[in-house]
Formats: sequence, C-alpha cells, structure tokens
Amino acid sequence: MNERVREILDWYRADNPGTLTNLARLMSHGRLAGTGKFVILPVDQGFEHGPARSFAANPAGYDPRYHFELAIAAGCNAYAAPLGFLEAGAAEFAGDVPLILKLNNSDSLSGGADPCPAITGSVDEALRLGASAIGFTIYPGSALRNEMYDQIRGLAEEAKRKGLVVVVWSYPRGSGLSKEGETAIDIVAYAAQIACQLGAHIVKVKPPSAHIEQAAAKKVYEKERIPIGTLAERVRHVVQSAFNGRRIVIFSGGESKDTPAILDEVRAIRDGGGFGSIIGRNSFQRPRSEALDFLRQVMDIYAGKTK
Amino acid sequence: MNERVREILDWYRADNPGTLTNLARLMSHGRLAGTGKFVILPVDQGFEHGPARSFAANPAGYDPRYHFELAIAAGCNAYAAPLGFLEAGAAEFAGDVPLILKLNNSDSLSGGADPCPAITGSVDEALRLGASAIGFTIYPGSALRNEMYDQIRGLAEEAKRKGLVVVVWSYPRGSGLSKEGETAIDIVAYAAQIACQLGAHIVKVKPPSAHIEQAAAKKVYEKERIPIGTLAERVRHVVQSAFNGRRIVIFSGGESKDTPAILDEVRAIRDGGGFGSIIGRNSFQRPRSEALDFLRQVMDIYAGKTK
Amino acid sequence: MNERVREILDWYRADNPGTLTNLARLMSHGRLAGTGKFVILPVDQGFEHGPARSFAANPAGYDPRYHFELAIAAGCNAYAAPLGFLEAGAAEFAGDVPLILKLNNSDSLSGGADPCPAITGSVDEALRLGASAIGFTIYPGSALRNEMYDQIRGLAEEAKRKGLVVVVWSYPRGSGLSKEGETAIDIVAYAAQIACQLGAHIVKVKPPSAHIEQAAAKKVYEKERIPIGTLAERVRHVVQSAFNGRRIVIFSGGESKDTPAILDEVRAIRDGGGFGSIIGRNSFQRPRSEALDFLRQVMDIYAGKTK
Amino acid sequence: MNERVREILDWYRADNPGTLTNLARLMSHGRLAGTGKFVILPVDQGFEHGPARSFAANPAGYDPRYHFELAIAAGCNAYAAPLGFLEAGAAEFAGDVPLILKLNNSDSLSGGADPCPAITGSVDEALRLGASAIGFTIYPGSALRNEMYDQIRGLAEEAKRKGLVVVVWSYPRGSGLSKEGETAIDIVAYAAQIACQLGAHIVKVKPPSAHIEQAAAKKVYEKERIPIGTLAERVRHVVQSAFNGRRIVIFSGGESKDTPAILDEVRAIRDGGGFGSIIGRNSFQRPRSEALDFLRQVMDIYAGKTK
Amino acid sequence: MNERVREILDWYRADNPGTLTNLARLMSHGRLAGTGKFVILPVDQGFEHGPARSFAANPAGYDPRYHFELAIAAGCNAYAAPLGFLEAGAAEFAGDVPLILKLNNSDSLSGGADPCPAITGSVDEALRLGASAIGFTIYPGSALRNEMYDQIRGLAEEAKRKGLVVVVWSYPRGSGLSKEGETAIDIVAYAAQIACQLGAHIVKVKPPSAHIEQAAAKKVYEKERIPIGTLAERVRHVVQSAFNGRRIVIFSGGESKDTPAILDEVRAIRDGGGFGSIIGRNSFQRPRSEALDFLRQVMDIYAGKTK
Repeated sequence: MNERVREILDWYRADNPGTLTNLARLMSHGRLAGTGKFVILPVDQGFEHGPARSFAANPAGYDPRYHFELAIAAGCNAYAAPLGFLEAGAAEFAGDVPLILKLNNSDSLSGGADPCPAITGSVDEALRLGASAIGFTIYPGSALRNEMYDQIRGLAEEAKRKGLVVVVWSYPRGSGLSKEGETAIDIVAYAAQIACQLGAHIVKVKPPSAHIEQAAAKKVYEKERIPIGTLAERVRHVVQSAFNGRRIVIFSGGESKDTPAILDEVRAIRDGGGFGSIIGRNSFQRPRSEALDFLRQVMDIYAGKTK
Repeated sequence: MNERVREILDWYRADNPGTLTNLARLMSHGRLAGTGKFVILPVDQGFEHGPARSFAANPAGYDPRYHFELAIAAGCNAYAAPLGFLEAGAAEFAGDVPLILKLNNSDSLSGGADPCPAITGSVDEALRLGASAIGFTIYPGSALRNEMYDQIRGLAEEAKRKGLVVVVWSYPRGSGLSKEGETAIDIVAYAAQIACQLGAHIVKVKPPSAHIEQAAAKKVYEKERIPIGTLAERVRHVVQSAFNGRRIVIFSGGESKDTPAILDEVRAIRDGGGFGSIIGRNSFQRPRSEALDFLRQVMDIYAGKTK
Repeated sequence: MNERVREILDWYRADNPGTLTNLARLMSHGRLAGTGKFVILPVDQGFEHGPARSFAANPAGYDPRYHFELAIAAGCNAYAAPLGFLEAGAAEFAGDVPLILKLNNSDSLSGGADPCPAITGSVDEALRLGASAIGFTIYPGSALRNEMYDQIRGLAEEAKRKGLVVVVWSYPRGSGLSKEGETAIDIVAYAAQIACQLGAHIVKVKPPSAHIEQAAAKKVYEKERIPIGTLAERVRHVVQSAFNGRRIVIFSGGESKDTPAILDEVRAIRDGGGFGSIIGRNSFQRPRSEALDFLRQVMDIYAGKTK
Repeated sequence: MNERVREILDWYRADNPGTLTNLARLMSHGRLAGTGKFVILPVDQGFEHGPARSFAANPAGYDPRYHFELAIAAGCNAYAAPLGFLEAGAAEFAGDVPLILKLNNSDSLSGGADPCPAITGSVDEALRLGASAIGFTIYPGSALRNEMYDQIRGLAEEAKRKGLVVVVWSYPRGSGLSKEGETAIDIVAYAAQIACQLGAHIVKVKPPSAHIEQAAAKKVYEKERIPIGTLAERVRHVVQSAFNGRRIVIFSGGESKDTPAILDEVRAIRDGGGFGSIIGRNSFQRPRSEALDFLRQVMDIYAGKTK
Repeated sequence: MNERVREILDWYRADNPGTLTNLARLMSHGRLAGTGKFVILPVDQGFEHGPARSFAANPAGYDPRYHFELAIAAGCNAYAAPLGFLEAGAAEFAGDVPLILKLNNSDSLSGGADPCPAITGSVDEALRLGASAIGFTIYPGSALRNEMYDQIRGLAEEAKRKGLVVVVWSYPRGSGLSKEGETAIDIVAYAAQIACQLGAHIVKVKPPSAHIEQAAAKKVYEKERIPIGTLAERVRHVVQSAFNGRRIVIFSGGESKDTPAILDEVRAIRDGGGFGSIIGRNSFQRPRSEALDFLRQVMDIYAGKTK
C-alpha cells in the first residue's frame, strides 16, 4: 500500500478493517490512485432536476451505463448515484470502479423553505450492489436538519458496522440562513465540522465565499484575524475545520461552466489543502471526449503534474 | 426462453433469479408472451372510486372472479388489484395468470391538495397470494411525496429480496403542480425517471401532453430542440427518460372512452417504443365479449399484427 | 359440516385452515348455527358512551359476566367487546361462545371532526383470551382514514397468519361527509367495498338510507337505474358491493328502540340478502327476559321460521 | 391464602399465575394484609411539582430511602414512584415492600391544555428493580388521550405477559372537559370504566363530586335516579362502573390537608365499597411520627377496626 | 478501592457490576482519583457553536487529539465529546482516559423557542469506542421536553443493561421559562431532580442564581425559609434536590472567563457539597500550559489542597 494512503487510513483507526479496506479502495483506484486525492463522478441530477435538464445536452447520459463507462475511462476514484442508476450497471461493471450509493435525494417537484430529502436507498442495498460507500446529504440551516442528522447517525452506524465508507454531502440551506449564507465561509466551515462530528469519513462541501453569515462568528474571524481573503485560504480554513485536516474534505464544482474558471478553482482547492473534487454536470453534460480531456486536466492538477 | 424476453431480462442483471423469474413470467404469459410487450388489467377502481361508479355499468364486475376470468380470457400479461380482490380469487385461479398486488390505494371520501395513499397490503401478503409483483403508486408533486418514496424504497427492497417484481404507478399530482402540469411532457418524463431511480422494474405513467410545466425545463426543451410534437415523439422521450429504454414503461389508458381514439393512442405508444398499456375501466366496464374484442385489437397492435 | 357453511367457507379459500376453522365456529354456534346467518352481541358502549349511559337502564349490565351469559342464553353466534370486558369473563366462560376482541375504540370525552379510535387491544391478546376474531372500526370519510386503513392492514395480516377471523366495522364519518351522508346508500356501499378490499372476512355497516351523497355517484345511480327505493333493495346493493355477496355483510341496529320497527328492519335485511345483525343496546339495555325474547324473534326471522 | 384475597384473585382468572402472584403480594403485605383493602404510598411529586414543593415541608423526604422506610413502617400495601426514586432504594429494601414503578410522569415546567405525560420507565425496568406492578397515568378528556391509551395498551400487554400487575391512574383532564368536570361523577365513573376496559387490574381515581358534566349523561342519571347525593353513594357508583366491583378501585386523597376531613373521606370510600386510598403528600409531607399515626388511622378505618 | 469511592458506589446498588465498574473508573482516574470529586473536560462546542468560535482562540484545538491529550495531561476524570471527536482519537488514546460519548447535540444554524437536540450517537457506538459513559442533554422547560425524556429513558435503560454510566446535562430552557428562569434556584433544583428521577448517575447543571421562577415554588421557599442567599447555599439545595446528595451533581463553568471568578465559583461549589465541575471553553480556549495550570488550581480546591 502507498505511504500516503497508509497515512490517511491512520486517521481512521477507530474504524474496522472492512471500512478501512473500502476507504483504501477509493484511494487506490483511477488516475489519482495513491495520491490521497479524489475526483469523484456523481450523477444524481436525473432525480434532483429531472431527465431533460440533466441529460438532453449530452443524450448519451440518459443511459445509466454511460456514467459507469465515463467514470472508468476518466479514471475517477469512484462513481456516486442513486439506487436506480447503480442497479442499472452494477452487475455489468462489477469491480470496475468503486461505487457510492446515494441514500437520500430531493426532486424539484415540490418543496418549501426547509428541505429534507427522501430516503431512497439503504445500507443493505449498497452491499447488494457491491458499493464501497454510502452517500448522504444533510442541509444544516434547515428547520428539519435534526431529522437528517438522526437519519445519517443510524445509517452511518450501520454502514461502519458493515464495513462501508460514509460520505456526507453537507450543504447549508434552509430558513436559518440567507441565500448568500449558504456558501459563507463561517457556514461552510461549520457544515464541514458538523459532518465530521456526525462521523463522516469523507465530507463534500461547496467552495466557500468570503462572506461571513453569523454575527457571533464574524467577531471571532475578525478578532483572531483568520485569513479568508483568497479561495485557497478559505479552503485551508475549511480543511482545518474538518478536524485539522484529519478528515477528507472534497469540493463540488458548483455551477461554473467555464473550464478555465473551474481549473482555477481546482488549483485553489489544491493549494488550500483540499482533497479533491466531485464533478457532475461539468463532466457528463459535455461530449465524452471533451469530458475525458477536462477530467484529465483536473486530475493532473491534483496529482501535481501541472500547476 | 424467447430472445426478446432474454434481452429485456438482461437489463435487470442486478436482480436475483427469483425476481428475474417473476419478470419472465409476466413476459411469458398471454397473447403477448415473448414479445416484450404488456397489456395488464388493473382493477382498483372499487377502492378508488367506489363500487357503483366502477361496476354498475357492467355488474358482472362486482364479482371479483370476473376480473380474473377476463384477464385470463383476454390473454393479459397480468392482473393487478388490491388485497381484497386478489384474496377473493387467488386460490380459485392459482397459477392461471400472473398477479400484481397493489400495496397502496386512495379512496374518494376525503382528501386535500397533497395526496398520499393508504398502505393496504404488504410484500408478505403478495407472497401468500402467489403474486409475481407488487404495485405501488407515487404522486410526484405532492408535498407528501417523500413519504411515498420512503415507503416504496422499503417495500421494493423487501420485494426484491423475496424475488418479486416492483411495478410503480408514477402519477404527478399535488400542490407543486398545475392541473395541466400533471400530464405535461417534462413532468411525465421526470415522473418516469424518479420511478426508475427508486428501483422500479416496470413504470406506469399517463400519456403525456405537449405542455411543459417547469420554466427551467422549458428552456432546455427549447434549446435542445427535443421533439415533442406528436404523442409518439413524447412517448419516445419518456422511454428515453426511463434509463434510455432499459426500464419497462407502460401507459395508462386515461379517461378516453372511444375505441378508435384509444387504439390510436396505443399505436402512438407502440410507435414511440412504449412497452404496452394498462387498461382498466375501458376493459371491465364494457360487456365481456366487447372487452375481449377490444383487448384483442390492442394486443394485435402491440404484437405488430395490425398497423 | 353444514352445506351452507361449507359454501360460505369456500369464498375464503385464500385463508389458512386456522382462519377457516374460526369462521366455521362463528357459523356453527347458537340458534343460527348452520344457517349462514349471524346475530352478534356487541358491548363496547361502556367505552364509547360511558357506563351510566350504557348500563343504568339495566344495571345487571355493569357486570361483564352478564353479557357473556346473555349472548350464550340467546344463542348469539358471537360476543364482541373491548379488552377489559373480555378479560373479565374469558376464563369463566371459556369455550361457551365465540369471542370477538374489539381492537380499537373511541370514548366520548374529546374529539374533533375527523375521528380516529384508540388502539386498545392486539392480535396476541385475542389469542390469549381464546377469541375467534378481531374487530376493528374504520371511519371512511375521516381525514385520518388512511391511518386506520394502515392499522387494520397490519392487524388483519397478523390475524390471518395466526388463524383468526377479521371483522371490520365500517362507519363513514368525518369532514369528508355530510351528516346525512354517513348513511347514504352510495357511501354505505362504498364503505362495504373498502372494508372488503382491506381484507375483512365480515363487514358491519349501518342500514343505508336512500340519500346519495356524492355527485359523481349520483350520476351513475341514475344512469344505471340502480334500485334503491326500499331498504331491502338498498341492502341488496350493499351486499352486491361486498364482492357480489361473497363476503359476509351484517347490519347494526342503529338507534331505533321500537321492537316492531327493528323487526321490520331485520326483515328487510333478510330480504335484501344481508347476513344478519349486530345488536347491542337494543339487547343489553332491556331486562334479560325481554332481551332473550326479542333476540329470539330476530333470529327466527333470519332462520326463516317467521316472516 | 386468605379467603378474601382468594375471592378477589378469582376476578382476574384471565391473568397468568405470575400476575396473580404479584396481585396476591400486594394484598398480603402490611397492616391491611388479607383484608382486600389497600393503602398505597405514592411519591412522584418530586417529578411532578419539583423538589422544594414536595419535600421542603419535611426535608427527610429529599432522601429516597425515607419513603421506602415510611411505607414499610406504616404497613402500606405498596410504594409507588418513578424510576429514579425506586432505583435509589430497590436494592437496599429488596423484598421489604411491594413496589409499583410509575412508567409515565409530567413535570410542571411547560404544558398546554391537553396534557400527555412523558414515558419515564419500562416494563423491563420494573422487572429489573423487583417491582410487582407498573403504574401509568391516563388523562381522559385530553386531545392526546388516544396516544396514552395506545401506550398503556402496549405496556399492559407486556406487563401481563411478564407477570406484573397493571395500576392505572385515570385522571380526567384536558380541553374536552371543564375544570369542574374533572371530578364530576359521570366523568370519574367514565374514567374508571375506561381504565378497566383498557385492562387495568387496579384503578385509581379522584373522589367524585356531585356535578354532572355531560348533557347526555345528565339525562340518564336523572331518568334512572342514580343516587349520587353523598360521597359514599358516588363511590358506590364508581365501583359499580368498574365492572360492578370486580376490579379494584382506589381513591386519591386529593388536596385536602385537614386530617379529620381526610378521615371522613376515607370512611365514605369504605362505606361506598371502595378498595382503599393512595395517599402521597398527606403522608410524606408530615413529620414521620405524625404520618405513621395518620396512616394507622386510615388503615384502621379500612380494616374495620374503627368507624 | 478507596473508601470514598466505595461509599459513593453504594448509592448505586441497583446497578449491575458493569456500570459500577465504569463509575469506579471515572472516580479512580486523574488527579482527583479517590476523592469522589470530578473535573471533566467536555468539547462539544465545535458542533454547538461552530469551529472558529470554538477553536480559533487556541487553534491547536481544531485537532481532535489535542483534547484527549489535554484531559490526560491535566488529570481530568473524563473527556466528553460527540461521536466524531471521539472517533478521531479513541484508538490512539485507548485506555488513557475515561470517555463520555455525548449522544445528542444542537447546532446554532436554526432553531425556535423550544429546543430539542439531534440524536448524534448511540449506546453501541459508545461501546465500540470504549467509552465508560453516555452523555445526554435534556431541556426542561421546552415544549419538546417529553420527547427528550423518552429518548434518554430508552438510552439510559440500554446503557445500564450494557454496563455504562449515564450522565445527564439538565439545562432548563424553552417557552415554559423566562430567560432569567433558566438559572433560577427553583428551576435548577427541579432540573436536577428530574434528571435523577429519569435515572441519571451523574447530573450536570448550571450554577443557580437566587432568582425564583415559579410562584408556587416561591411560596414554599419563603414559608420553609430555604437558605439560598449564597452560591454555596444554593449548591447545597441543588445537591439536596438530587436525592439528598445520593446522586453525583456537577456544575458547568458557565460563561465567566476570569480565572479568580471561576475559582471563587469552584470554592462555592465545593463548600455547598457539589461533586465537581465540567469545564470546556475555559480549558481548551486557553493556551495549553495556562489551561493545565488553571485546571490544577481547580482540582486543588476540590481535593482540599487549597482553600
């Protein structure tokens, strides 16, 4: 086993060998194998936004097999999707790429100020499909957040007992926050902390802005002069907030569509000590060859092969 | 086993042999055996609309045995009904026609803007009655949809473990949608996608109209010039939205009562690549011989025996 | 076994021998043994209306043993009561009369427009007390009806697995209905249908009036000229709505107190093909000898010994 | 075994020998052993009203051991308290006095018009602590009463299966009743009936007033001329309402503090056929010797040693 | 075993040897070993207030290992934290310091007048991590308190069965109380009583003020002349309210930041018979050497080594 992988695994000594094995699998697959860095392909937009909004731009993506193939060809560490999409390829591609079963999802057909996703999978389904990890979304800031925290608590306990890795999407949202606050540096750092305290092995957050949402936090940021001027500094603060870097934190690509802008963001994540990216729409909504090229560039940045 | 049946089964390789066996049974029964096409007789209107509105037009239908006999005589792939109706004939007609136990139902005696059916059956009851599949209705667009998604999640997991097929009626409805939006093409395609992502083997939707409900979707349909002008085109888009045709999608007959109009609709479903029809009131509310004749015409269209 | 009993049991071939045995017990006990007709004594008024309103008119009824004795002496098919009343005599009268344990009950001390009874017993308690059946009340028309449907679904499944008979009191009530609608013919027929679809072996409804509550139903009753002019005709329609007479439907005595009026009602039930009566207050609120005489007259009508 | 004890046990023939043994223990302990009468010491006021309001008048009562000792020294049939208080003495006084574990309790720190206590113990905890019975409070008249009824249903079933006695505190209260109605004779009798129907072995109610709360009941009390003029008559009516005296009904001391008044009340309970008293604050808020003297007087009345 | 430890264990004779062993561990570790006094380090602020507000003042605290080391170096009896923080050090420091797993936590990102924390851990997780105790927060005064009481009831029962100690943080808060009432002497004493009645082995409350919140309590405090003038007197009253000193009551440091003020408070706790302190922010937000010095002073006071 690679030294860096061994070092990271050492942060998770409370876990059983089954979970460590699956965590090692995630870090030993694809182009970033052995680097301790991650690029994950997530495809839950069909459920979250509907099929046409997700796949019409690149209709090959209507076919669930396309995404398995894309993740494999690009050399991603893992492919994450809801139950149906994984079911439709898990046997065909058994063993070809580590899988993450998303256990909750939201559609865009109804909803209020305080979101709470539907449970759409289970730990046993993840085992049945050969997945290495479960994925779960929490919305800190929602009035229903305690329900989500309690759900992931139970699911994470079961997943760890059964040797799986726990990946938490921690997206601040809801009536407790302003729109701008959803990506505020204090809130994103807090969201990372909460996911870690809930027992996540891997945390996914959005790249934070320099806005500070909460007055009580603002006083501290100013008094302690926490550097948050650049994205790299903010990433560093988020990583610090994730148990001082002893939990894996990766970042979503957000909505930016311009390749140079994304690559700049990736460089900042790398420079701030982030562990990688999870890139959905910017991957599967492009033509295949373009997507492969794009993902290669992202991985090269994380691998230290380009600036 | 027929080649087409084998091809379709291959889409469900994540399932265990028990479920594949029951899926094969559905495709190997009746006049459409071996074609990969479906005509299913559903009779839940007694619960949903009351007995007189359902059966007075053809009083033979008050007797639960009538529907078993009709499904068998017409050569339907399967007969779907709630617990009571199946209990009242499952022993008498054991093995004569594949059964689908509907596990949830709504009555017309109360209700608000956001429907959520009552659970009226269980997976173990389906096994006890010799059924091949469970049926379940979800209402995407209802504020209570997450409750339904969570219910079918659990029931589908159990059904698959116990070797049954999962059929999901996906009917957009509720405060999140306009009345016209319930059959809008973007919404019906989305409803098919959701059912597939929730793990349905077979999805039932309504024939979609050319209306587009959601602004965010409208932009995509227009930008990508998705063809939705004819019913056949819309059916094709819905089938595409169901994992690019790798999940079985069938269509309900809706409220049209005129035979030529229905047959036209069936032709469009066939031309768009739909897998068949589920026809209730238009079957059992007609005199028996007329119903048999009508269903024969429908099946001939799907079997490619007539235009 | 009597031929008529055998015929009725044949309608329930989906049930296991345990349940068939208990159903046979109900039809083989008392003065109506072997006729396929039922007169059942229910005493849940102590819980539903309070003790004085129930028993002060005939204070012997305060003693739970009184009702066992009355049911036995009168030759009723069964005695139905809540947990406490059955506990207080089940050992003393073990084997003397089939028992029905009522599993839910409502008191008169609070409540809103949409009733939902409290669960007050369990299937295992029914077994412990030697009962042959469970009893359960549903209120179609209540906004909480789905909760009740889900409860009886689970209880009925368990009861059938453990060899008990399922008796459902189906009383339309709640914000979805007008007061007059609670006994409207369309609603009572619908209530019978729902109970049958939920898997009831025996359904209890109120004698229906000629009122039609729902506009959609009214159109059908008029178009199909369903005869509902006399009580016998309405009973016949309700029986038809209960799986064309293949489920046992019995009728409550309602609030009428005048013996001739009740006997007329009983004759109409008989003439319409009803399976019998369930008579509480009109039995136990009379002096014992008067009650025995009255019940004898009722049974004679059902037995065909008098007009 | 004493003849009267044997007679009372005979009312509970539906129960298993384990429960009968514990019921016999309650009737075979203390100064009233063998009389079929009860004086029980309950101490849940620390939870219900707070420590100072409960124990400051007699600070010895802050110590949980004090109440065990008091119940033993006074010769009470049993000592009832919440989990914490029993845990703090159950080992020290193991076998010295029958214990009743109160399984639900309310504090005075919040609350609305419709109370529902918190569950604070379990049947297995009662077994662990060597208790002979569980205690449970219901509030008929509360909009949340069905929740309580369902809770005691499940707990009572488990308790009976595990050989424990079920004691129900039945206190009408909530938005369904006027303040005066909480102790109205019709309501208290109804509350006793409900507790019995729910399967209680022993019922605790408050001494009823002559007020009649419900119009429908008032008509019956007047028509049937039910005597409710004196407390003894009202007690007799409540005992009658508890299965004609075949369930044990005991009375709380209420808030009266004056010893002669309490003793008068006790005489009326005795004269009306009540089975005893449950006396908390009037016992443990007095100095120990005074309390012992007072309880001796109460017991002498029940034992028939004084008028 | 030390005599004082043995004496305290004797108060918990209802518990099994497993729980007694863990309680003994807590009292036999660190600088206060054998004294029966406690100083516990709790670090749940990362979850409760966010990472920057918690750790920016002393950034070493971002690392979960820091707090284990601090608790060990300072000689605390135990270290308490949520799941994530314990997971991140439990293997590294296995056996070096007794652990308390906090099973519920609140974040600061949403919320109303009536708090109820999220469940964030389980008894089995405590066992998996080698913890000696579970920790749980209740908010008496919240409209949701019964939910919390029911949660801790179940968790405490399970913890005791599995040999763990139960520590309850009892913090009055919610719509039932004024802001001032949260630390009122009557309310804090009541909160201690409730925690004890719910079965806590160790109770944590805030140092009470001389304010009296409830009118009914005020009358008693005045009538019985309960001394509450000094903090030591108030601590004595709270200890008395915790089963007359037979349950362990410790006090939080509150928000005071000034060392002399805290030490004065500690002296008052000691003088009033309190069992110790739980000191979070005042420990880990100082530089390490300062924190060690500070904690040494606190422990010396409890150990009787300084006035």
